[in-house]
Amino acid sequence: MIPDSHTDLLTEAVTVTLVTLMPDGQPQATPVWVDYDGTHLLVNVGEGRQKDRNIRRNPKVTVLAIDPKNPYRYLEVRGVVEEIVVDETGDNMNALSLKYRGTPKRYGLEAPPREVETRVYYRIKPLRVIAR
Amino acid sequence: MIPDSHTDLLTEAVTVTLVTLMPDGQPQATPVWVDYDGTHLLVNVGEGRQKDRNIRRNPKVTVLAIDPKNPYRYLEVRGVVEEIVVDETGDNMNALSLKYRGTPKRYGLEAPPREVETRVYYRIKPLRVIAR
Repeated sequence: MIPDSHTDLLTEAVTVTLVTLMPDGQPQATPVWVDYDGTHLLVNVGEGRQKDRNIRRNPKVTVLAIDPKNPYRYLEVRGVVEEIVVDETGDNMNALSLKYRGTPKRYGLEAPPREVETRVYYRIKPLRVIAR
Repeated sequence: MIPDSHTDLLTEAVTVTLVTLMPDGQPQATPVWVDYDGTHLLVNVGEGRQKDRNIRRNPKVTVLAIDPKNPYRYLEVRGVVEEIVVDETGDNMNALSLKYRGTPKRYGLEAPPREVETRVYYRIKPLRVIAR
């Protein structure tokens, strides 16, 4: 569903916006790292955080990736979280860290308050894709 | 409500994400230009576009501004559209064009399909602000 013309916005180190829904329906938007397996978008978060609680209540999410070199070029993916996977080995987080920071070191190791948190990642199934 | 530490993300030429809600509650996210009057966020759009139709149905919106120089620094504004103003004179659009493109020339003049559309802008009242 993601056109080849825009997959670079998911495979290169572009910080994207993840939108979840608060209990009252208000959108909650935060910058996140993202990965793409050819079908699903993968987003890794700390378990129990606001966006995680939101997704467990309502799996509707939207991701917006804006080209950092050209803000008129973007990819919007409206989708649904099909699966929440506990990142027990840290492999997913390490892969994201390698992609975004150039080192496989787990993000949490440099941020003490997050050090011990459980990381999970979402498999987001695209339902509607807009590429401009 | 916007802390001084983060107003630069609204007053400088940062392309931000505007989130509206589709009829089924799915978030819709698009890159937009933004202005800030010290209280409200101002966003200018073409009347009748998807985000405009969404806002007229449900005025809950969220804006995320990510620092282009440091993606770990951001401002999330969850708010409500308090007023929709028809930009009859084009003054609002010209001010935005000046800020983002360095010229007051109306955006539509260079994009034929949008040339004749009516532009409106929203006054967004912040209800909850997260600055990181």
